[in-house]
Amino acid sequence: MTIFLTGLPSAGKSTIANVLQVRILEGGGRGVTLLDGDLVRKHLSAGLGFSKEDREQNVHRIGFVAAQVTKHRGVAICAQIAPYDAPRKAVRAMVEAYGGFLLVHVATPVEVCEARDGKGLYARARAGMMPAFTGVSDPYEPPADADIVVDTTRCTSEEAAESILEHLRSEGYLREGDNRAH
Amino acid sequence: MTIFLTGLPSAGKSTIANVLQVRILEGGGRGVTLLDGDLVRKHLSAGLGFSKEDREQNVHRIGFVAAQVTKHRGVAICAQIAPYDAPRKAVRAMVEAYGGFLLVHVATPVEVCEARDGKGLYARARAGMMPAFTGVSDPYEPPADADIVVDTTRCTSEEAAESILEHLRSEGYLREGDNRAH
Repeated sequence: MTIFLTGLPSAGKSTIANVLQVRILEGGGRGVTLLDGDLVRKHLSAGLGFSKEDREQNVHRIGFVAAQVTKHRGVAICAQIAPYDAPRKAVRAMVEAYGGFLLVHVATPVEVCEARDGKGLYARARAGMMPAFTGVSDPYEPPADADIVVDTTRCTSEEAAESILEHLRSEGYLREGDNRAH
Repeated sequence: MTIFLTGLPSAGKSTIANVLQVRILEGGGRGVTLLDGDLVRKHLSAGLGFSKEDREQNVHRIGFVAAQVTKHRGVAICAQIAPYDAPRKAVRAMVEAYGGFLLVHVATPVEVCEARDGKGLYARARAGMMPAFTGVSDPYEPPADADIVVDTTRCTSEEAAESILEHLRSEGYLREGDNRAH
């Protein structure tokens, strides 16, 4: 199974992904591969930039790995901006050849992302120093095909993760009773 | 578990890898991810060339994926020239964090590879048209740490695959009786 979190920079994707990883590992029985932005850029996509083509290539590689993890009955959790619709759909198709795919839109409004941004990246983008920064100087196509939309202005990361786990249980991907809050 | 076949172009790596894949799938119970040269260049390493750095990056990415497959209890079969020792050792370390790693040197002599080469690549390299062609215009570092050395001038691909499977059985990675020739 693959859980793919998409959203703006600082939307809270990585935090939710980390909570999900811990909760699924606590449930036991399934290994988890976390494909987070920085890790992917290091291990799969060094040298790629932030053009539309390079972003698409980056998401495609994540999809390839997530599909293999899914094939071998692991859980892949991807936390990526993944701003374009077409490559997200391509990843869904690659993964669904082997198992379940859950697209989660972490739909935190840009103002909230910007207020939270600890690294000051939004400020640099507003100052024109980052020419391809999603949400400021580069587009984000909100997914119309999200399986879950998470609004982190109305819930904590733990609650967001719990709603995702609940969805997975209701769809039969996790057994009832697994991964409950302790 | 990961089986990594290294050797010169046209050494017979892909053929052996394909036989291995079929035999392991026939044995049942374990999924296989085949990471063959062309597939990897398409899904993971588009844009990389054949410099030492790019070859190293390419092998590193394969290692990352093979490690994830191994983590989730699948079998990764890699068929790559992988001419440099250091990245091969790095892949071994990445994979052994999760499971078994078997380095197979497909040690077909360059004269035999050249005679077999259906695509005429060696001839083009000899003519100076391929500036980084392993075995002609680019180095190959034979592994001193190969777990098995296969000489395809003295056995068929099926026999080579069988000797690899026999080794895996003797090391406990495959059960006795699995993957026997039918």
